Amino acid sequence: MIQVAVMGHGVVGSGVTEILLKHSEEIAKKVQEEIYIKKVLDLREFPDSPIADRFTKNFDDIINDDEIKVVVEVMGGLNPAYDFVKKCLENGKSVVTSNKELVAAKGAELLKIADENNLNFLFEASVGGGIPIIRPLNQCLAANEVREIDGILNGTTNFILAKMIKDSMSFEDALALAQQKGYAERNPAADIEGHDACRKICILASLVFGRHVYPDSVHTEGITKVTLTDVEYASAWGGVIKLIGSVKLTDGKQEIIVAPMFVSEESQLSSVDGVFNAILVKGDSTGDVVFYGKGAGKLPTASAVVADVMDCVKHQNKRRYIFWEDADSSNILPFEETKYSMYVLANADDTDSAFAAANEAFGESKKLSRTNSEKNELAFVTPVLTFADFEKAVEKFEQSGAKVITNIRIAVI
Amino acid sequence: MIQVAVMGHGVVGSGVTEILLKHSEEIAKKVQEEIYIKKVLDLREFPDSPIADRFTKNFDDIINDDEIKVVVEVMGGLNPAYDFVKKCLENGKSVVTSNKELVAAKGAELLKIADENNLNFLFEASVGGGIPIIRPLNQCLAANEVREIDGILNGTTNFILAKMIKDSMSFEDALALAQQKGYAERNPAADIEGHDACRKICILASLVFGRHVYPDSVHTEGITKVTLTDVEYASAWGGVIKLIGSVKLTDGKQEIIVAPMFVSEESQLSSVDGVFNAILVKGDSTGDVVFYGKGAGKLPTASAVVADVMDCVKHQNKRRYIFWEDADSSNILPFEETKYSMYVLANADDTDSAFAAANEAFGESKKLSRTNSEKNELAFVTPVLTFADFEKAVEKFEQSGAKVITNIRIAVI
Repeated sequence: MIQVAVMGHGVVGSGVTEILLKHSEEIAKKVQEEIYIKKVLDLREFPDSPIADRFTKNFDDIINDDEIKVVVEVMGGLNPAYDFVKKCLENGKSVVTSNKELVAAKGAELLKIADENNLNFLFEASVGGGIPIIRPLNQCLAANEVREIDGILNGTTNFILAKMIKDSMSFEDALALAQQKGYAERNPAADIEGHDACRKICILASLVFGRHVYPDSVHTEGITKVTLTDVEYASAWGGVIKLIGSVKLTDGKQEIIVAPMFVSEESQLSSVDGVFNAILVKGDSTGDVVFYGKGAGKLPTASAVVADVMDCVKHQNKRRYIFWEDADSSNILPFEETKYSMYVLANADDTDSAFAAANEAFGESKKLSRTNSEKNELAFVTPVLTFADFEKAVEKFEQSGAKVITNIRIAVI
Repeated sequence: MIQVAVMGHGVVGSGVTEILLKHSEEIAKKVQEEIYIKKVLDLREFPDSPIADRFTKNFDDIINDDEIKVVVEVMGGLNPAYDFVKKCLENGKSVVTSNKELVAAKGAELLKIADENNLNFLFEASVGGGIPIIRPLNQCLAANEVREIDGILNGTTNFILAKMIKDSMSFEDALALAQQKGYAERNPAADIEGHDACRKICILASLVFGRHVYPDSVHTEGITKVTLTDVEYASAWGGVIKLIGSVKLTDGKQEIIVAPMFVSEESQLSSVDGVFNAILVKGDSTGDVVFYGKGAGKLPTASAVVADVMDCVKHQNKRRYIFWEDADSSNILPFEETKYSMYVLANADDTDSAFAAANEAFGESKKLSRTNSEKNELAFVTPVLTFADFEKAVEKFEQSGAKVITNIRIAVI
């Protein structure tokens, strides 16, 4: 019998205990050990829980219990999760977490502590919820050189964008609907500003390229500025707008970004609907592989956590090979040097002469049109430019009297 | 250093040696052991190979070499692969194979021998080529009760159907093109008759439900009877025709089938194009998860084989938990009891009265129409019926004078 503790009894945590209790027999059969939840840490009380007597409000009850070999951290947030996880790893307990903020901020350090103590630190659930992605990247695609990952990594923003695309709902209305359905928090900033997607692409980048990428070194744009006009132009161009987290190797450096992008309707990522996530992995041997499913939610995420717990139990005195080194941002391609073709929406008194000025400034561009466009509205797609050159071109273009309202990158996926 | 042998130097085999040689350093770093190809078995000669001196035509050179710990079987076919693999497992060598015919026919027996000898028998590459599916099913989704798997498991037939759908190419022309491009064999029966897809769904079914399903207990239809008329009606209905391998639990029995089906354009599987494969896994906790990528080809398949070899090296004295029991077909739902809604194409002198007869015979059906239909052509979709009831209804319907030309199942995915 293996004794485990679960820290946090919120949405994911209650799902973890539910699965461990409900499927206890099948799980025991699969790992050839019974898994027993000895403690659940939460400040709240849950008198109706079938294991109400095993709840504690005191972390010491876990850290000082030498019989507990695996600890699940599903509290979320950086504090006190970081402190608790570190102490667990320093005290002979393997840790499983779904906490992307923790892994993105402290992954390298915690993996090192786990390594030094011959323990496991697993976090399948931190990216893609119930979609298997960390383990396939680490194992199944082990004989591959992964060159690029592009993902729809946040279900809330994908739901909002899908509502804008399919039902012509405004951003504000779609956000309100997402909140009403429980997909978005009352304070939705982490989702709609792209921070959640950023943490996830950082974890994937760290894993496949072996060096920790910290969120603050990643250019991150959310979807708050996306309008229905942009959605219509994306459609005219032949695609849809998605919030994409992307990392690839360019001249030996990691080119990493989170931003809304035009995605061609030919791409598998264009048809990812509602709260679903999809992660496209480009390997030198496999070609394109896509992993698709619900990226969040109680049971999908909890099932990924429990699969990691099972893996810990099966590998008790043998570490899983999962590791990356700490690193500064010297390996990240400066944002100004990243290259994209851009959709540009501008206002101009004379759109014909403004488009001529655009071709002059950005290079030969492709004009887009939509029905019911405003008289002074001009939309076009530029050639591929570094962001530095793009900004210079905007300045030059605006000397013609035109005014750039917005710009969105064109994804090559 | 771990010594391995590769049996077969065809498309996949040459890819395996290529990857093992090209990526030897990264692989050694990942598994913390050098992997050395000691022998390659093939009857042909490859004087230009960088390891030409390690080729042998004699299996004894492998089986009698106690230093060889892992053997890769990529010869294909049942004989002599079965005999060779069995001997390897009986003689202390773990085996990695991409051979779906072997796993579908002999999986339970070979897994048992591997178990008895504390060795690994791994076959990630046997389903989905480079798409990770066996390991995610076995590990990442371990805390899930998998309820259903539906897949586009054969790239050749998907290429042919996609050409029919997108370019209105006839089946014969699309097959010829597939052969010209090297996607289809000169004798394409295994692909177009559905046998290849059948072997793969058998392997997946055996893995998730724990009992060996033999291909000859699975109702298998190929795509040779699919016409452009059917393609047009599928479009009128709101979907496309795909060759689907499907298994689900119905009343405790496995309902398993391979057949062309109408797939709604709302389904993630409808947009799977060209030679790609996609596998939809429905779990009680995760909901729908889809794995998508190239299902065949030299390097994708070889990279999956090498990942398994790496896993063998990492788990030398510790078995991977992968196992299913042998079983007869008593656990398979008889084909006559499987339930589907059906697309029916019929000829009738008076289509109006024939459709009235159809509603009478099958229950309330939905009429489909297409432009340029023949005068005496009637197409409709029946309610959900068991196949036994469907056949009775066809008999009754044809008493009206109408004649059923073809029928295709409607997938619920």
